[in-house]
Amino acid sequence: MHVIFSDAQRAHHPRHFLAAGVVRDCPEVPARIDHLLAGVAALGLPITAPPDLGTAPAAAVHTRAYLDFLAGIHARWQAVPGAGAEVIPNVHPRSRADGYPATAVGQAGWHQADTACPIGPETWAAALASSHAAAHAADRVAAGDGPAYALCRPPGHHAFADQAGGFCYLNNTAIAAERLRRQVARVAVLDIDLHHGNGTQGIFFARGDVLTASIHADPAGFYPYYWGHAGEQGEGGGAGANLNLPLALGTGDDGVAAALETACARIAAFEAQALVVALGLDAYAGDPLAGLAVSTPGFARLGHRIAAIGLPTVLVQEGGYPSPALGDNLAAFLGGFLAGTDGAER
Amino acid sequence: MHVIFSDAQRAHHPRHFLAAGVVRDCPEVPARIDHLLAGVAALGLPITAPPDLGTAPAAAVHTRAYLDFLAGIHARWQAVPGAGAEVIPNVHPRSRADGYPATAVGQAGWHQADTACPIGPETWAAALASSHAAAHAADRVAAGDGPAYALCRPPGHHAFADQAGGFCYLNNTAIAAERLRRQVARVAVLDIDLHHGNGTQGIFFARGDVLTASIHADPAGFYPYYWGHAGEQGEGGGAGANLNLPLALGTGDDGVAAALETACARIAAFEAQALVVALGLDAYAGDPLAGLAVSTPGFARLGHRIAAIGLPTVLVQEGGYPSPALGDNLAAFLGGFLAGTDGAER
Repeated sequence: MHVIFSDAQRAHHPRHFLAAGVVRDCPEVPARIDHLLAGVAALGLPITAPPDLGTAPAAAVHTRAYLDFLAGIHARWQAVPGAGAEVIPNVHPRSRADGYPATAVGQAGWHQADTACPIGPETWAAALASSHAAAHAADRVAAGDGPAYALCRPPGHHAFADQAGGFCYLNNTAIAAERLRRQVARVAVLDIDLHHGNGTQGIFFARGDVLTASIHADPAGFYPYYWGHAGEQGEGGGAGANLNLPLALGTGDDGVAAALETACARIAAFEAQALVVALGLDAYAGDPLAGLAVSTPGFARLGHRIAAIGLPTVLVQEGGYPSPALGDNLAAFLGGFLAGTDGAER
Repeated sequence: MHVIFSDAQRAHHPRHFLAAGVVRDCPEVPARIDHLLAGVAALGLPITAPPDLGTAPAAAVHTRAYLDFLAGIHARWQAVPGAGAEVIPNVHPRSRADGYPATAVGQAGWHQADTACPIGPETWAAALASSHAAAHAADRVAAGDGPAYALCRPPGHHAFADQAGGFCYLNNTAIAAERLRRQVARVAVLDIDLHHGNGTQGIFFARGDVLTASIHADPAGFYPYYWGHAGEQGEGGGAGANLNLPLALGTGDDGVAAALETACARIAAFEAQALVVALGLDAYAGDPLAGLAVSTPGFARLGHRIAAIGLPTVLVQEGGYPSPALGDNLAAFLGGFLAGTDGAER
């Protein structure tokens, strides 16, 4: 299995994280990379840096206005009187039908859904590098080179076509899925992050060629609150091509595995020809953002089952926050996945 | 002229004010009341406390879910692990079509548009008292008791039917307009606050019985960014019943007076039978939120011209932040208005 990663992804270091009215330390830190690389090293997997693919992979799923915002806003922000070091939104539109704003502050509120996606001087470059990892992994899988793991950080699945949120800027999972979709007719996305993949759902909600399935803590009590309910099933040409499997807080290995069976059945019925896994590891029982209670062996079980789907597969790193087991959990998942392939390169 | 005010409006004291990525002192402080009362005292106007009208005036323009949120959220917030002293949103829906959230944090983002409307333990009671001042002023005007000035604080014109924003919780101006509307067929709202009256516009946008006109700093460069453009003219039955007159930053007395003439012509053409003035004083050249450049004599001129519209009128206090001239500016406006009435009680 190929591991795709670029050191350029390290430079993004968000400082501001407002939650429940209090500014806290942001858990989406560069050190996550070291935890994840330790997991990769435990399996002895080789690491390849992606080529510079520019903005093309991102532009396939994001709007031009949004990419221009991400690329330029930090510099523009410095001209706002009294501006802070990071771009943090303070006012938001009610809908995308409201007028698109001209100012930096107005655009921040338009393109940043929350206070968990601050933009510093290195954010754009790191997010772009992360998108390259996802896109290159997809390219290798599409080329028949076997499964690939894109060590994407910053993560991506909360990013909509025109909006950052929840530590995410460019939707790496959607980028990989769209890239595969240009090679095959039907692609499935399976999101096992603790949090609902709201951005990915939003990007593909009206499309019937990409199935999006997400297993996550019930948004009735958990971020992202407004999306991830079972009733959200797609719209227009995408009606029926979105599957949400919200789980009660505290659900453990068996409950998650049961939801995975439901998702696998849907993926089979959809007749997907390729698979992108939004691989969050924050469903771990000991994760700092704890909501579900998957164990380290539980991740191996999930990886094994997902390999048995039997599709060309891109694994895209999403959440999972520093704990002593973060690297072990990645190694467990990847090890389970590799065991599930029975050595066959697909 | 009657001045309507309750000391209960003082208790709200917002502490958190995030702007351009930096937490600052909030300018919407209880001391604004003392500045404004000094202006009232300079004219020797009598002050009357409003009766307790409960939630009925607010419920005429706000949703029940929003009022329940405002009434209960501070107590519920205390149960959020690690919650801060004030309710401050950190994540927002993309539209009102997204799922209504169950949790305190999710609801905060749904019902609070920005970080300039924190909810403390006394916010609900103070906002309710402020709404009573507006409603009672409208009742006295409707009873033929002459013009009235509601010293509303916290202010209201940025509050939508289901959302707080920009120091505003209950839309006092809309409450007064709706209350008058139940007595007469056609009511005009004239908003001369520095900022666009986006909440008022939103509440009446699809209605043809209430004309909303707003003179304000161009939202292309100023809060509230997403609304207040000339192209927003109402919808459905309200098409043509919304008038926005955005002005370039730094516009002074003559420019504002010219916009006022345009608004007065529209009000006359609308054949309004009663008028509510959203009386912001932050268009003052020396206001801490400076955007326009109205002088103290300029406010007298505005008051005089508005009186000449010749309609039964409720003046509702909106913005205007502490400066040495805040009380003088109120006295100038009210004095000009009274001079414009030529002593006739209307």
